[in-house]
Amino acid sequence: MPNWLLPEYIQDMLPDEAWRIECMRAGVLELLRLSGYQLVAPPLLEYADSLLVNGSHDMDLRTFKLVDQLSGRTLALRADITPQVARIDAHLLNRQGITRLCYTGSVLHTQPAGLMRTREPLQVGAELYGHSGLESDLEVQRLMLQALASLGVSGVHLDFGHVALFRALVRHAGIAQELETELFSALQGKDMPALRPLVAGLAPEIRNALLALPQLYGGVEVIARARAVLPGYPEVAAALDELEQAAAHLQPLAHSIGIDLAELRGYHYHSGMVFAAYHAGSHDAIALGGRYDDVGKSFGRARPATGFSMDLRQLHGLLAVQTQPKGVLAPHRDDVALQKKIAQLRAQGHAVVVDLLGNPALHTELNCDRALVLRDGAWQVVEIKL
Amino acid sequence: MPNWLLPEYIQDMLPDEAWRIECMRAGVLELLRLSGYQLVAPPLLEYADSLLVNGSHDMDLRTFKLVDQLSGRTLALRADITPQVARIDAHLLNRQGITRLCYTGSVLHTQPAGLMRTREPLQVGAELYGHSGLESDLEVQRLMLQALASLGVSGVHLDFGHVALFRALVRHAGIAQELETELFSALQGKDMPALRPLVAGLAPEIRNALLALPQLYGGVEVIARARAVLPGYPEVAAALDELEQAAAHLQPLAHSIGIDLAELRGYHYHSGMVFAAYHAGSHDAIALGGRYDDVGKSFGRARPATGFSMDLRQLHGLLAVQTQPKGVLAPHRDDVALQKKIAQLRAQGHAVVVDLLGNPALHTELNCDRALVLRDGAWQVVEIKL
Repeated sequence: MPNWLLPEYIQDMLPDEAWRIECMRAGVLELLRLSGYQLVAPPLLEYADSLLVNGSHDMDLRTFKLVDQLSGRTLALRADITPQVARIDAHLLNRQGITRLCYTGSVLHTQPAGLMRTREPLQVGAELYGHSGLESDLEVQRLMLQALASLGVSGVHLDFGHVALFRALVRHAGIAQELETELFSALQGKDMPALRPLVAGLAPEIRNALLALPQLYGGVEVIARARAVLPGYPEVAAALDELEQAAAHLQPLAHSIGIDLAELRGYHYHSGMVFAAYHAGSHDAIALGGRYDDVGKSFGRARPATGFSMDLRQLHGLLAVQTQPKGVLAPHRDDVALQKKIAQLRAQGHAVVVDLLGNPALHTELNCDRALVLRDGAWQVVEIKL
Repeated sequence: MPNWLLPEYIQDMLPDEAWRIECMRAGVLELLRLSGYQLVAPPLLEYADSLLVNGSHDMDLRTFKLVDQLSGRTLALRADITPQVARIDAHLLNRQGITRLCYTGSVLHTQPAGLMRTREPLQVGAELYGHSGLESDLEVQRLMLQALASLGVSGVHLDFGHVALFRALVRHAGIAQELETELFSALQGKDMPALRPLVAGLAPEIRNALLALPQLYGGVEVIARARAVLPGYPEVAAALDELEQAAAHLQPLAHSIGIDLAELRGYHYHSGMVFAAYHAGSHDAIALGGRYDDVGKSFGRARPATGFSMDLRQLHGLLAVQTQPKGVLAPHRDDVALQKKIAQLRAQGHAVVVDLLGNPALHTELNCDRALVLRDGAWQVVEIKL
């Protein structure tokens, strides 16, 4: 096998893509900075025990493990940055009030999340710790939609779910761990044939509620339907109120809003409202997030938390191809006036490419649409056709 | 062991450091872009066969390996980005003329390169392919020094070596591979007691030259001394001429210039002039590079190449601590005039942090030195002491 072949679902970013993604990254980080989100950069690898502390079995399987030669312990390559940022909030910053953090970096997966996905997504995201009210959910949801808009992603559909609904039903019915896991799978897959036998032995109120959940998806009218068919537990009423308010607030920023009450994505660590952005160009969600109030607990400090993340490589695939701005070709000459002109152009932000070979046949490779030429005794920029 | 502990020589970047390094990264990439270097971003992992193709045994030992579940083959985490960029030049871009590429990203090492180093350096670098003359060496050397200056690193000592000198002696003497390796180790360590027995059986001209190399270090006067004591092979004369010209050209950009003719760093893939920048604050070189004309060969296409790289985390450690600019604290209120003012400030580049908790005792955590207050019916920015 030729040694220049890359592993499956692993890709290089070549010039135009790399440049565009670098601009996208800078743009999202600047947007987050302007709202007070401070950048942190946790490492690519940690002890497996730390990285997988809140993880699902699925996340465990998708995480690369290796042995640390210095300690003999098992290391893991991060498959998600959120738990690392929670560790930083819980243990390192240790603030009492609100902490807003953002991050960007690659994560690695043993298996791709989908046929069109890479095993090396480039995550960017934001997390808000220390506030449990709806205001912080709205802040991160708004930021996520603003970030997508700033990247030029339009026609975004925003879908809401609420993990507290299923959790409330499980708690009130005293459902055991094992059955909870099976119910979770069936609901997540909207798999009615699997769901029916699982709920058969439960009290009618709970049974009907669990059977209703997979049907409770659609527009915001779903919230009213849910009020009618779900039990009136205070947690249920509160969750539905939150969904109603969030949908009303975010409506002006999204192309359309949906509600999906069987959506339990991230159930292993989410605790409240969850949300995901969709786009016609992608089968998978293009950005997602939610509330996960207990994540810091395993690091010694439970803090309310909500946040979002997205994969810039996935988003880049949705955007129209855009090539890097072209530069100015300069001859290679030891001429003071020329060097001064080159420095001037660079100070103005123009890329100036020195033509070391001086072979016109190779000019097209140098990515220039202008050239510096000596005319009437002065170096001037002229347009060139290559 | 607490699960928030990180592995040895692995660190988080917390807000001020992460922000500063992000700015350093953006600054260096912009400097490179302005000289026509196009950004590429190769993956964090590849098949081990591809990554270690030009590597030394030392690099092999420093490279983490893992098994690819999709192919069953051995993957490696990159310990260096240069071979990946050479692969992109040789195989993917396949240009006939000059290709200028730059890159930035983390690499991982099983062992730290020094006691003060991280196992996860953040490399940034530039490579110029397709030109074998001194002009391209000078271009990348100049860029390296400009990059250091732009980051605020001053007092840089630039050291030159030339791998072609040792290679010429080996070739003319017909020295076998095994002896070459031993000679290389002894020279690299300036280990005279080890060197003497190794050269005992060689022709006097070669013996004397090899014994002289470890003494040939100091200022530019070393070049004249080398002309006197090294054999007059054409390659030797050419290498010494190159060193002389490079030293003269770079002199104005460096604090001091040194020559070290036993310096064979990167000998396993370098082929010509090598260079390294030093700073009083660091035992190790803070930036380094050189010519490596054969790197692409194993990817099917040998191309002349020269480049440099540096570790932004190491450089950050040399700079005076600098904290992130502070923001403007804004009350959390559903007030149209306030929201307008916040949007205005953000559009001007100010971070505006919404005070969701409204607890003055926690304000110091929010990293603000100004606040938005309602005065005379208008929202105004006032300085605050926290």
